[in-house]
Amino acid sequence: MKPAIWIIGARPFGGDSVDVCVRARTIDSIAPHGEKTPAASDTVVDGAGMLLLPGFVEGHTHLDKTTWGMPWYRNAVGPRLVDRIENERRWRAESGHDAAEASRALALAFLRQGTTRIRTHVDIDTDAGLRHLEGVAATRAALADVLDMQIVAFPQSGVTTRPGTRELLDTALRSGADVLGALDPAAIDGDPALSLDITFALATKHDKPIDIHLHEPGDLGAFTFDLLLDRVKALGFEGRVVVSHAFCLGQLPDARRHALLERIARLNVALLTTAPASVAVPPFREARAAGVTLFGGNDGIRDTWTPFGSPDMLERAMLIAMRFDLRRDDDLAAAFACVSSEAARGCGFADYGLAAGMRADLVLVDAETVAQAVAMRPARRFVMSNGTIIPADFTR
Amino acid sequence: MKPAIWIIGARPFGGDSVDVCVRARTIDSIAPHGEKTPAASDTVVDGAGMLLLPGFVEGHTHLDKTTWGMPWYRNAVGPRLVDRIENERRWRAESGHDAAEASRALALAFLRQGTTRIRTHVDIDTDAGLRHLEGVAATRAALADVLDMQIVAFPQSGVTTRPGTRELLDTALRSGADVLGALDPAAIDGDPALSLDITFALATKHDKPIDIHLHEPGDLGAFTFDLLLDRVKALGFEGRVVVSHAFCLGQLPDARRHALLERIARLNVALLTTAPASVAVPPFREARAAGVTLFGGNDGIRDTWTPFGSPDMLERAMLIAMRFDLRRDDDLAAAFACVSSEAARGCGFADYGLAAGMRADLVLVDAETVAQAVAMRPARRFVMSNGTIIPADFTR
Repeated sequence: MKPAIWIIGARPFGGDSVDVCVRARTIDSIAPHGEKTPAASDTVVDGAGMLLLPGFVEGHTHLDKTTWGMPWYRNAVGPRLVDRIENERRWRAESGHDAAEASRALALAFLRQGTTRIRTHVDIDTDAGLRHLEGVAATRAALADVLDMQIVAFPQSGVTTRPGTRELLDTALRSGADVLGALDPAAIDGDPALSLDITFALATKHDKPIDIHLHEPGDLGAFTFDLLLDRVKALGFEGRVVVSHAFCLGQLPDARRHALLERIARLNVALLTTAPASVAVPPFREARAAGVTLFGGNDGIRDTWTPFGSPDMLERAMLIAMRFDLRRDDDLAAAFACVSSEAARGCGFADYGLAAGMRADLVLVDAETVAQAVAMRPARRFVMSNGTIIPADFTR
Repeated sequence: MKPAIWIIGARPFGGDSVDVCVRARTIDSIAPHGEKTPAASDTVVDGAGMLLLPGFVEGHTHLDKTTWGMPWYRNAVGPRLVDRIENERRWRAESGHDAAEASRALALAFLRQGTTRIRTHVDIDTDAGLRHLEGVAATRAALADVLDMQIVAFPQSGVTTRPGTRELLDTALRSGADVLGALDPAAIDGDPALSLDITFALATKHDKPIDIHLHEPGDLGAFTFDLLLDRVKALGFEGRVVVSHAFCLGQLPDARRHALLERIARLNVALLTTAPASVAVPPFREARAAGVTLFGGNDGIRDTWTPFGSPDMLERAMLIAMRFDLRRDDDLAAAFACVSSEAARGCGFADYGLAAGMRADLVLVDAETVAQAVAMRPARRFVMSNGTIIPADFTR
């Protein structure tokens, strides 16, 4: 039998002390502390009574857009969506932006902070072509053994407005993209039925799941949402669609919102929120009560759109808790689930969790409870991803 | 002349490099880098091109309530205001809570992170009596040379409902409290005119400013606000009243809100916001455009009310920026002003700022601009408070 790595005396989710045995990149066993004995040839890590958590999951980011590791980007952009899209396009052309380099710097930062699975959206448009996909795919290949990355082919400028975009997405889905993205079928594409039909046709052709950015407000967003759910049902996409942002769910009258959430749950469509402090958000408790998978992510991190965001998913969990006014310990643990188990379920990351047979993605921090880890965001004392120990200065 | 301390080659607010000379706890001069020469007996600190900021200002916290430095408090309290007040009262009785010890631990954490001025509210009620005031006053005395602290005598359980509270506030204002606090004259006291009359009479008697917690929503909050402004005008309290929270300003129809903000500006009443992500907030840009002083604070930090909050005021500035959707560099600098110059103005802290003649409260961080410091919250590389260098492990 190959030698194992043991983490001795750690407390999963703050519970009783256990010993974790990792073998061949997998959690071989989790047993009460002292029940089993490592072999002489095994590696032993002292868990020191620390809080043991599963590796974190970033459910929605844009590794390709970040300025992480570069000089500070001075933001002087206008307030409208089109200002930001145009500004970014200009910045890319002028800055010699390299999606491989940018994404690798940020992916490494995520890893060092305990994030072992990432869903990242890469811009596909008629200016950038497939350059971002290729760059991020290079990062994925370079880190394949330690980072589980899903790439979403994301039409940042819409799918109907720029001829050629559909063909680029088609190529992207043949060339390494795992998920098909989409964006505001009404507000950006101006033709929600056509836009959604194109998206679902492409996803069907390539047998890929869908992750759509839906910023559309109130009744417009709900209208588009219903059109989307019609297609989920008609085309058998249950369990394979994420709706990101879904601001509209925070803006509808109670009855309309409630009915929509019921339908979202029934069709097993998942919701992603960044928990933005300044706009409406889907109702956390109501969505969970309805049985909807609701998970979290940063969206962009320090890019031309926003100076904010962090590769520390405990910080995102904190922001989620603050946005939804979650204060109790059990509620903070639910916020943590948004960047761990719920995100793994929503994105479909396999073999996730603190249990025998799961991929060995483990994090240790100095905290008594999950709630404390969310509120304090303590330094990562130990990170393991896919069975590999990730030191604090890990690079590649 | 007494020896000076020089900070050589730092960039105030990200501008051109300067040399700062500190003498007798005061900024003696700020001159272009290299223009002046320290004496041989002076102490010289290498600014290394770092960002130079004034010491930060915490505009609203509760040092007496914190569990900072204690074992993690497991929060299982109910959601209503009265649940939280009763839960806290019970916890205090059972935990052997010591306001001096708690406040000192947190005040030291603030100092190490570059906060040199703090306005803290201390609970005054018929259970606690003046115990919290005495505890926090002991911390203030212990740190008097390095921390500029204002103590607000705060009737956490209201001023009319518990007989004896008014007398306790009266004693508190005679015994070290700098500011008179108040709380929801309608929603808590049930008699807004009487409650405000008691508050203004006490403040007039002791010639003290007022800081009122106003959580009352929408039209009720606006009604109370107008009653308060009537008294500001009638009794000459212009420039001496802070309204904390003021959620109602984020919930009123445009015309009502606009008229109220104009009146607030005219009577020179300042607003404090913690920029909570889950409730309405005063409109940032509109308040500033109207000429209202709007500043920031944590409110409680890791206490029985909330697991959140941090003695890092750069984090509070970030949360303010996120809440008000401030993304541009100039907007992030405005968020920083909320925890520096605006807070000093709102609270009336004297001799504040990066200019000759001001108190020597200085912070150096590794950042190019103020915006970067807000977004990244880099470690404090140098802190000086009232002319004293505060090492990273400062304690007392």
